[in-house]
Amino acid sequence: MRDVRFLGFDVFGTVVDWRTSVARELTPFLRRHGLGDLDPAAVADEWRALYQPAMEPIRRGQRDWTRLTVLNRENLETVLGRYLDPRRVAADELAALNRAWERLDPWPDAVAGLTRLKTRFAIGPISNGNVSLMMWLAKYGGLPWDVIAGAEITKTYKPQPQTYIGAANLVGLEPAEVALVAAHNDDLAAARMCGLKTVFIPRRTEHGAGQTSDLEPSQAWDMVAEDFTALAERLGC
Amino acid sequence: MRDVRFLGFDVFGTVVDWRTSVARELTPFLRRHGLGDLDPAAVADEWRALYQPAMEPIRRGQRDWTRLTVLNRENLETVLGRYLDPRRVAADELAALNRAWERLDPWPDAVAGLTRLKTRFAIGPISNGNVSLMMWLAKYGGLPWDVIAGAEITKTYKPQPQTYIGAANLVGLEPAEVALVAAHNDDLAAARMCGLKTVFIPRRTEHGAGQTSDLEPSQAWDMVAEDFTALAERLGC
Repeated sequence: MRDVRFLGFDVFGTVVDWRTSVARELTPFLRRHGLGDLDPAAVADEWRALYQPAMEPIRRGQRDWTRLTVLNRENLETVLGRYLDPRRVAADELAALNRAWERLDPWPDAVAGLTRLKTRFAIGPISNGNVSLMMWLAKYGGLPWDVIAGAEITKTYKPQPQTYIGAANLVGLEPAEVALVAAHNDDLAAARMCGLKTVFIPRRTEHGAGQTSDLEPSQAWDMVAEDFTALAERLGC
Repeated sequence: MRDVRFLGFDVFGTVVDWRTSVARELTPFLRRHGLGDLDPAAVADEWRALYQPAMEPIRRGQRDWTRLTVLNRENLETVLGRYLDPRRVAADELAALNRAWERLDPWPDAVAGLTRLKTRFAIGPISNGNVSLMMWLAKYGGLPWDVIAGAEITKTYKPQPQTYIGAANLVGLEPAEVALVAAHNDDLAAARMCGLKTVFIPRRTEHGAGQTSDLEPSQAWDMVAEDFTALAERLGC
């Protein structure tokens, strides 16, 4: 990690707790539409389950570059369509609900940890979230990014190599001068293949209390820390 | 200005005092190379004078997209070539001198003003400086940007329309929801043609005590303020 000057962060799950936050945003909507019996966390999971498949045609070049905000909106209509007729919901109301992804709470250690890390490193997202989504999310949660890198800059989605390499290029550094910080082993594996350094932070309740994935590092990553403040400590910030 | 949600800033001259700062960085270099008799501010002016011509072939599509950091380095060698053989200066030393553009002091009101403006607006550069240059400059001066927009995202230089329109697009807004804040009337005129709102802030010593350009607004811009703290006041921040 000695040569690292930029820490790039996966965001959904690593920096912010999307599941609890999206469930909170869904709750009044579901109640308003007579769906108060549904578990909002389960609906959040259904929404999120469409995230990877929606990016896949873009990764494969079968669909033109499309921002995550647009994919999220399409996926929202798919999920709601299981319970009601989404055409009967006002477009404004769907748009407002889709902005749930701009109001995701940071994990409790995130802002304090990032603020310390920022003193020694340049920091920014390397996320599949588009730039404006990352910008509003940072304003909502007080995330002190120096720059916003990620999928939109290279117009393809992680784990395509170009996303990681393009992030290093954007900040004017070699891949080995950039570390990806993520709670997901597959994200780190893809970053390592591109020459980035890798930092694993477990987020054992990202998917709720019964989570079975990404509880432990699956490879000998360059660094493992319990949370962002522990990482700051380890890096002497 | 009622619909504005993003304030985009010209940086060189508007946010930072490039001339004094570059002169300060040049001083020890010139002295080391037996050029202590040269006025470093005049050499800074010579360096900066090559800025617009260097971007012109890229605007016209006669040269591939090239970052400002690279253009600055080419221009530095041209200027130094008037006084010494730049091939006799170590590449590391030239690179370090070129990084003068990452160490430009903000105008005295800039950080306080931006910090207040950030409470009500998303803020970021719409600069010809590349993203990494803007990132290190922000870290040097403590500029609290929410995002970095500008020329590198659209791969052409202001005042090409795509630079302004692309900045609005990057932050997910309509041009009329974005205001350009600049000390240069021509920059504002180009932004207005693209539908952006316009804010003029005079920087009457950007080019030194004898400055004759951009002392006053040349059109009825949407807003004129004496500096960033006055702008924050006007906008109720």
